[in-house]
Amino acid sequence: MIKVGIVGGTGYTGVELLRLLAAHPEAELTAITSRKEDGMPVADMFPSLRGHVSLAFSAPEKARLNECDVVFFATPHGVAMAQAPELLSAGVRIIDLAADFRLKDTATFEKWYGMPHSCPEILKEAVYGLPEINRDAIRNARVVGLPGCYPTSMQLGLAPLLAQGKALVNESTLIADCKSGVSGAGRKAEIGTLLAEASDNFKAYGVKGHRHLPETTQGLEAIAGRPIGLTFVPHLVPMIRGIHSTLYARILPESRDIDFQALYEDYYRNEGFVDVMPKGSHPETRSVRASNMLRIAVHRPENGDLLVILVVEDNLVKGAAGQGVQCMNIMFGLDEKLGLKQVPILP
Amino acid sequence: MIKVGIVGGTGYTGVELLRLLAAHPEAELTAITSRKEDGMPVADMFPSLRGHVSLAFSAPEKARLNECDVVFFATPHGVAMAQAPELLSAGVRIIDLAADFRLKDTATFEKWYGMPHSCPEILKEAVYGLPEINRDAIRNARVVGLPGCYPTSMQLGLAPLLAQGKALVNESTLIADCKSGVSGAGRKAEIGTLLAEASDNFKAYGVKGHRHLPETTQGLEAIAGRPIGLTFVPHLVPMIRGIHSTLYARILPESRDIDFQALYEDYYRNEGFVDVMPKGSHPETRSVRASNMLRIAVHRPENGDLLVILVVEDNLVKGAAGQGVQCMNIMFGLDEKLGLKQVPILP
Amino acid sequence: MIKVGIVGGTGYTGVELLRLLAAHPEAELTAITSRKEDGMPVADMFPSLRGHVSLAFSAPEKARLNECDVVFFATPHGVAMAQAPELLSAGVRIIDLAADFRLKDTATFEKWYGMPHSCPEILKEAVYGLPEINRDAIRNARVVGLPGCYPTSMQLGLAPLLAQGKALVNESTLIADCKSGVSGAGRKAEIGTLLAEASDNFKAYGVKGHRHLPETTQGLEAIAGRPIGLTFVPHLVPMIRGIHSTLYARILPESRDIDFQALYEDYYRNEGFVDVMPKGSHPETRSVRASNMLRIAVHRPENGDLLVILVVEDNLVKGAAGQGVQCMNIMFGLDEKLGLKQVPILP
Amino acid sequence: MIKVGIVGGTGYTGVELLRLLAAHPEAELTAITSRKEDGMPVADMFPSLRGHVSLAFSAPEKARLNECDVVFFATPHGVAMAQAPELLSAGVRIIDLAADFRLKDTATFEKWYGMPHSCPEILKEAVYGLPEINRDAIRNARVVGLPGCYPTSMQLGLAPLLAQGKALVNESTLIADCKSGVSGAGRKAEIGTLLAEASDNFKAYGVKGHRHLPETTQGLEAIAGRPIGLTFVPHLVPMIRGIHSTLYARILPESRDIDFQALYEDYYRNEGFVDVMPKGSHPETRSVRASNMLRIAVHRPENGDLLVILVVEDNLVKGAAGQGVQCMNIMFGLDEKLGLKQVPILP
Repeated sequence: MIKVGIVGGTGYTGVELLRLLAAHPEAELTAITSRKEDGMPVADMFPSLRGHVSLAFSAPEKARLNECDVVFFATPHGVAMAQAPELLSAGVRIIDLAADFRLKDTATFEKWYGMPHSCPEILKEAVYGLPEINRDAIRNARVVGLPGCYPTSMQLGLAPLLAQGKALVNESTLIADCKSGVSGAGRKAEIGTLLAEASDNFKAYGVKGHRHLPETTQGLEAIAGRPIGLTFVPHLVPMIRGIHSTLYARILPESRDIDFQALYEDYYRNEGFVDVMPKGSHPETRSVRASNMLRIAVHRPENGDLLVILVVEDNLVKGAAGQGVQCMNIMFGLDEKLGLKQVPILP
Repeated sequence: MIKVGIVGGTGYTGVELLRLLAAHPEAELTAITSRKEDGMPVADMFPSLRGHVSLAFSAPEKARLNECDVVFFATPHGVAMAQAPELLSAGVRIIDLAADFRLKDTATFEKWYGMPHSCPEILKEAVYGLPEINRDAIRNARVVGLPGCYPTSMQLGLAPLLAQGKALVNESTLIADCKSGVSGAGRKAEIGTLLAEASDNFKAYGVKGHRHLPETTQGLEAIAGRPIGLTFVPHLVPMIRGIHSTLYARILPESRDIDFQALYEDYYRNEGFVDVMPKGSHPETRSVRASNMLRIAVHRPENGDLLVILVVEDNLVKGAAGQGVQCMNIMFGLDEKLGLKQVPILP
Repeated sequence: MIKVGIVGGTGYTGVELLRLLAAHPEAELTAITSRKEDGMPVADMFPSLRGHVSLAFSAPEKARLNECDVVFFATPHGVAMAQAPELLSAGVRIIDLAADFRLKDTATFEKWYGMPHSCPEILKEAVYGLPEINRDAIRNARVVGLPGCYPTSMQLGLAPLLAQGKALVNESTLIADCKSGVSGAGRKAEIGTLLAEASDNFKAYGVKGHRHLPETTQGLEAIAGRPIGLTFVPHLVPMIRGIHSTLYARILPESRDIDFQALYEDYYRNEGFVDVMPKGSHPETRSVRASNMLRIAVHRPENGDLLVILVVEDNLVKGAAGQGVQCMNIMFGLDEKLGLKQVPILP
Repeated sequence: MIKVGIVGGTGYTGVELLRLLAAHPEAELTAITSRKEDGMPVADMFPSLRGHVSLAFSAPEKARLNECDVVFFATPHGVAMAQAPELLSAGVRIIDLAADFRLKDTATFEKWYGMPHSCPEILKEAVYGLPEINRDAIRNARVVGLPGCYPTSMQLGLAPLLAQGKALVNESTLIADCKSGVSGAGRKAEIGTLLAEASDNFKAYGVKGHRHLPETTQGLEAIAGRPIGLTFVPHLVPMIRGIHSTLYARILPESRDIDFQALYEDYYRNEGFVDVMPKGSHPETRSVRASNMLRIAVHRPENGDLLVILVVEDNLVKGAAGQGVQCMNIMFGLDEKLGLKQVPILP
């Protein structure tokens, strides 16, 4: 059994980790920290876990994280990098759900997250936790920086196009029109995501600039091996879970005869958590609700020169906690799907 | 034109007052206070008011409330009673949407609201602003304490039964099973009413005790002229606006032949904002959405001895701001329906 | 492996059965019928099942249900009783999610369901599938009639009170104020449950009379061994899944010293799917979402003589498909929790 | 008073027309037809109208539509063109909320709507009812074909760019990523828009082709006086009302110094129902809920060469019934805002 610790388990990605790990046959939850809730049984805060999780929150200094095999950070940005050096010295591996180990360039990190990076040398060895792209590197990683929820959908949605030897689409005019449920904003007391504000309502936000843009650009450029240009427009959907990314790419004249449906199916043929749907499909976010699956549909309206790629994922699972468990499985040599076989909840 | 001031216009009852007063033909909005938003145009915070309200928030001390004819308090409990003496000396009339002038007994007030009452002598003259019950007193009131949202629905739902010379039902075993949309919790940054917490979910709360119980009991006893016993169980509904109260009263053996449908229709025959629906109706909250109407249906399942009274209202209109405007119309000798003729929004 | 057939798998209880059985380690889904969708892969209709269910719908006559060990009917009322005789002769056991085998009195059945009962002799041997009450009878049943969703919550919520040797509460004035998500209305093309009609809205329905009343009364009288009187008022909540029943029972004078919290805890001490929550709790429907758990809280406001029992369940799981799988486990001698250990989905 | 008839008042655009016309000071509702509901008071079907509309539905042949000044068709496609010739001969003017008089090319109409056009000569004189573009033609029109809900938002969102003497953006690669609440699908018994299907869910639909594409292209080309190329991807949002269109246009090199914010403000300077919001705004659909206002925000992320235009409207008001009333006001020489001054409902 893998001994697992969680730092910061009171948010949505934290409780989702708890849900997944409580049912994982090879993981043993040994510590979960929260300074504020020290001593409170986890199931008192989240009654959904009654009978499934008997652990109580403990203050960080009591948590004996050093004895874990792996520690997940489901914390605000900045926490993981502060604790990483000590844990690594103790031989503990780290999976960070926040942004501390996503951006390779510390200047970019500082610009978007407003804090200096405290351990650039660890950042250098950290692996970006997108298994479909980085599986081999994840296997031996000591530190995994999990992708953001939007970036997961954008990168997996565009990778088959960009991972080819030469450009098939105009790679400098990519557009990602993304829509997310409100759990993506976290379990934070804020007016903007109150039910009375956000339900029966729809809006864009962050059009000027969003932290997930540099992360996604970095990832796409790594996939393509070439510079890319992306415009990213996020929107808030009145629902709890789910991301739907609508991606637009202009086909180059010389690529007009490519069968893009086949290209996508080939690219993901051996992936357990990416489902390329039949031609003409319109994937729904609920078709992946509470599961680690991501579904993609490839459209080319009127057989013209614009590709429209539809991608859905559960932002808390494939976009966060589930992807973390998938990485953990890889890091510890387990079946990648272990503990992640839940059937999506519909209706 | 009546010169109207609003203290505390950044919450849901405040913005609803703004919506109603902006379209009121005899009201002139002259001041709206918010210390925190001093100088900010109201329509910057609430873009729905662009083109309808040109006023900016001003700090209380700059607001010249003394020059108003009437001031509404859409504030937390305790604010109105602090400012009431000065305004009254200046000849300004007061309509309080909070609880400062609801409970006649100061000990009860202090028990439920956790603060001493600072002006019990003003409390004595304050009128409880339920026009269907207290219309005459409201006309000349200097201070009106508006009912809470739940109490409005419970009192208007039970009044026809209790207002008779003798008891028709067992008045000591009344039950009110009430359901409210989340705007009733106010525009406050709180985790419990986030969309991700409160949508696709239903629960009771405050079963042990809720502030609206003593207020309702006081009101019902005033109507009946006798002691009554009420159990009140509030629930949170995943919707924005609306209260549905399901009221249970056990018919006394000697009253079994009464035509309760007729009793209700008679009682409310001349009321413009209470609609007794045809027999067998199931009123929906959306049938009063954004309007000052309250609808009632009277049921007697299997013609037995239990009356089931269904009541719907918009908690922000008839349960708060609309009732306030209705009182204002009465206080200033206007047509009671002025500015309150909006057709409910459906769907 | 138990060979399982499903008749009528295109509704909500059908797809929920599929979700549960697809992950059940001892069940093998061998046939699922739908005349209309004959030949269509189940996962084409419900993409959430892609990769989990490879079966296609087949017309009833092709389905070889006779070779199953057990057949679930997730059909409109009347279908199961038409097919029961043939299946039983073939040695197939039956679990009906509709109402054909719930009501013991055929006249009552005919009154509420508007059709004659075609096999009263089978009805006689049929067992009411509420394991916490009828576990022993279920074990050997050839035919199980699963309770309705509301009746499950009402009966399990009141059973501890009524199952005592003598009356503890006034058993003729019980009230059940119940609230259900819209999936309870089924996957049927109807205007009343469109999102544009039912969301941001709340209403009661069926106050005059609802089919679940005679069923619940029959069940409660069986538990009590005495006649009981119940008023049942159902309401529609703008959410997908979940039932919240608020139950009211008047404590008899001689029972005022009973510790009802302890009474409930004792009664359900050994049950795996009933959770009596700590005193003062307000169970939320989402705390059981997509799981077979039912949670109960016992309240006694102001320590008076009215018990307020709060019950939550997922109407599609403990209120339908999950309860069916629980019964199947019992009927085939398996661990009662097999395939039913899912952690509820929160948020 | 203008005598107004409505054909087909049982859908969402019909009841919205009723809401608006009931409060219109110069309109007198004289007939509303529904064969199916002949004789039923309108307020029995829509209790929100109790006290506001006393009319009953009448069968078409009894409705004496010939005596109206204007008749609105809130019907399925094909109804208006069947009745238009007779009404026009009687001197009645027509405003059609369906598609009969939108597409100028009958072949295109037949392709997308699957029926021949029965009165091409009337189609020729019909005016496309988008006041901000066609105000003068509407004034004298006998027949107005109101734009679809999506086309209104796309055309008003792009018009300022296209209405210039020369192209400012690449006019052949326009993209409209649009999101609509479910009331856009109408008040029809369909599984896809049930609350249990469509809530807590998000998806695209009709990516292959949607009827609103040829209509919008026709409109944009009329505005530009040049051919344009548009990709339109509609999505379904789990909310009742509202459309949010996110429009993408690539700025031509020679136009990079244009102040697009100023261009939009200038273009709509005198419009009462189009609000160009301050730079950096993210308009919300609820900011126009239940009102005839349409709001636009102009973005240019990172000051690059992609314009991102955000547009919100209430699909039932500015996207249907409200625009119809606006046209009526113009046709009858009234103040264009008469009866359309409602403040949006927030929250």
